Amino acid sequence: MKYKDMLGRAEAVTVEQAKEIFYASFKAPTLAAEDVPVSDALGRVLAEDAASNTNLPDFARSSMDGYAVMSRDTFGATESLPAYLKVAGEVKMGEEAKVQLLKGQAVRVSTGGMLPPGADAVVMLEYTQPFGENEVEVARPAAPGENVVQPGDDIKGGQVIIPRGRRLRPQDLGALAGIGVTAVKVFRRPLVAVINTGNEIISADREPMPGQVRDVNSYNLAGLIQQAGGEPLRLGIYRDEYAPIKKAVEEGIARADIIAITGGSSVGTGDLTAKVIDGLGPPGVLVHGVSVRPGKPVIIGMAAGKAVFGLPGHPVAVTVSFELFIGPLIKMLSGEIDPLGLAGIPPLRVVMARISRNYSSAPGREDHLRVALAKKDGELWARPVLGKSGLISTLVNAHGTVVIPLEKPGLEKGEWVEVKLFE
Amino acid sequence: MKYKDMLGRAEAVTVEQAKEIFYASFKAPTLAAEDVPVSDALGRVLAEDAASNTNLPDFARSSMDGYAVMSRDTFGATESLPAYLKVAGEVKMGEEAKVQLLKGQAVRVSTGGMLPPGADAVVMLEYTQPFGENEVEVARPAAPGENVVQPGDDIKGGQVIIPRGRRLRPQDLGALAGIGVTAVKVFRRPLVAVINTGNEIISADREPMPGQVRDVNSYNLAGLIQQAGGEPLRLGIYRDEYAPIKKAVEEGIARADIIAITGGSSVGTGDLTAKVIDGLGPPGVLVHGVSVRPGKPVIIGMAAGKAVFGLPGHPVAVTVSFELFIGPLIKMLSGEIDPLGLAGIPPLRVVMARISRNYSSAPGREDHLRVALAKKDGELWARPVLGKSGLISTLVNAHGTVVIPLEKPGLEKGEWVEVKLFE
Repeated sequence: MKYKDMLGRAEAVTVEQAKEIFYASFKAPTLAAEDVPVSDALGRVLAEDAASNTNLPDFARSSMDGYAVMSRDTFGATESLPAYLKVAGEVKMGEEAKVQLLKGQAVRVSTGGMLPPGADAVVMLEYTQPFGENEVEVARPAAPGENVVQPGDDIKGGQVIIPRGRRLRPQDLGALAGIGVTAVKVFRRPLVAVINTGNEIISADREPMPGQVRDVNSYNLAGLIQQAGGEPLRLGIYRDEYAPIKKAVEEGIARADIIAITGGSSVGTGDLTAKVIDGLGPPGVLVHGVSVRPGKPVIIGMAAGKAVFGLPGHPVAVTVSFELFIGPLIKMLSGEIDPLGLAGIPPLRVVMARISRNYSSAPGREDHLRVALAKKDGELWARPVLGKSGLISTLVNAHGTVVIPLEKPGLEKGEWVEVKLFE
Repeated sequence: MKYKDMLGRAEAVTVEQAKEIFYASFKAPTLAAEDVPVSDALGRVLAEDAASNTNLPDFARSSMDGYAVMSRDTFGATESLPAYLKVAGEVKMGEEAKVQLLKGQAVRVSTGGMLPPGADAVVMLEYTQPFGENEVEVARPAAPGENVVQPGDDIKGGQVIIPRGRRLRPQDLGALAGIGVTAVKVFRRPLVAVINTGNEIISADREPMPGQVRDVNSYNLAGLIQQAGGEPLRLGIYRDEYAPIKKAVEEGIARADIIAITGGSSVGTGDLTAKVIDGLGPPGVLVHGVSVRPGKPVIIGMAAGKAVFGLPGHPVAVTVSFELFIGPLIKMLSGEIDPLGLAGIPPLRVVMARISRNYSSAPGREDHLRVALAKKDGELWARPVLGKSGLISTLVNAHGTVVIPLEKPGLEKGEWVEVKLFE
């Protein structure tokens, strides 16, 4: 089923409908895994369960500076009626505690030190007093296990400590190191081919002739891809000619996981993206045109099982279409499993602010409004950064986006809005 | 003025007081700048204003597919009484529009195409109809400037488009490319020396003997440093001996911007961090002990103008002290300028959730409680992940942190709390 709608000549599908149409056809592949050192694995997604083959710790440790004791030797001890224990030695940090603790004895131990055999608790240093040559006064009872980390208390041998699909955080790297894992299998980052089209586009390092403009979109798009956890594969700038663009898209399909083409997504004479996608074999173009502003002339297609996006050439429309369709797909392909859906709450950093002027939005269209934030009288105000979606400066001067839903006719000055901050 | 307080023997300073004491002595340096290609500059902080030496665009462009016209030729045009214009040619994309538009003429132009001399507006294609051999019927009037992007509308020549101190986002990279800037000066990332101490600590790739544990902290800390925008410089694991630790800290001071030492921050026999910092010359230790749990035995010092932190050896305490003191300092040294303070609103991703059980917190102490989130009956609940701060697994099993302020005695089951999600 193909939805063709551009230039207002038919009813465009909504963002939600566009996603439904796409995901009804698309089957997400599992990306290959690669080995990386744990010290380089921050933010990568684990490709297999990490289990410990050992207890952490694998010996009982003190969690305080104090004296290792038999707890029953301290029962009933108070400041006025302390227990007196014989100091039988000291456990050195990092060394095996070899001295067997006997009834009536205490052994000096530091935080993290090994508990000597026979001891079952640690009395904190501040509840003790040296007494005479070789004794210690204990002013409080210690319960069995008090101030002791038992073997496996942190991580049990055999236990999966980090499941496949977890995006690795600093503490996860620490835990992996703690169980002796210094390299892990992580999913390859989704590779996104970036193809820029337009006779007027030249490389950013060239001097434009009249009628030419430098490439803005591939830089913006590559940055968005990196932020979403993907890796950009820039395939270059192409003139509006069918064969070379098709060849570039075929290269993208062969090498990358997702293909993003900027420019030529509308229905004008020079707009070849839809033809190219349809020329790659079924299903081809699935969606052409979405009721969103800016970004309406977006194309969502599929070829050889891979998603192929045709994005409008306007920079702001590139950003909006990316955030709606490509960013979420990169996250899905990354292999990250998020059973609670927490990654999406909130999907990005948001702030509440009051809108600084009335703004009207056509009903039946999801409006993505760029805003700049400023504090005034202690309140945060969001000023719409107006301007055509072809202007990259409207994005540069904005702090974030306010989404006005399909059915809402606009915003009233002073109204509170949720501003999704740019990352 | 030195605040010495450990083991509850004096009143500890609060987090805010500790920051005041530190920042009263500390003078933030400006880090050196380095040149990077714009395509590698995502997330880097711009070290000098980026100004455009050209207008963007530097010619008038059409923002629609349609006909370039003299607007006055279309005044009064309606569907029933259209204007008829002679089609004088077509502007090719990416080429100079050389044909001079004369009164009564129209020139076909595509989105992004150059406006021909003489034209001052564009009529959208859908408001036109071909008529006869060589004419076009225009059914709506075009106002002067309509559907035209004027030279400099996006970026004016001479204008600073991205100020020094901006952390570069995807759209900023796009704008830089658009004005022909393909390499930028960015501030060097703050370098943080990581020094791990403890006789019991061994490298993660070694097999522990009884009494030994693998290094967790340097991995956790390096990840936290990277997340905050800094670069970790691992200086290794040291036994609890004064001279080698001092030498490592001196190397850190010589090479890095911030020095972080884990372990040995308490006041036991083997705890040398405070002595080492004091041994480096004034001012030495500025704060020793902060009323926060976990993380109380933290040391904040200064030597040779650089911040030297002594962090407790417990992994959870490392994370809490990092987030309170080191992360914000890295952000400050990064050179990022944020006049609205927006980077701090919210400082991290947060969600609201209901706490699943009562939790009591000692007044006079800021409590950082790790929680795991789960949805129940459509609501998000936060379950405290209890356990000693020495257990890395409590961090691994948690989704985020709830901060219980100094004066609050605890949390009541069902109460709504703000959960700061781990990044």
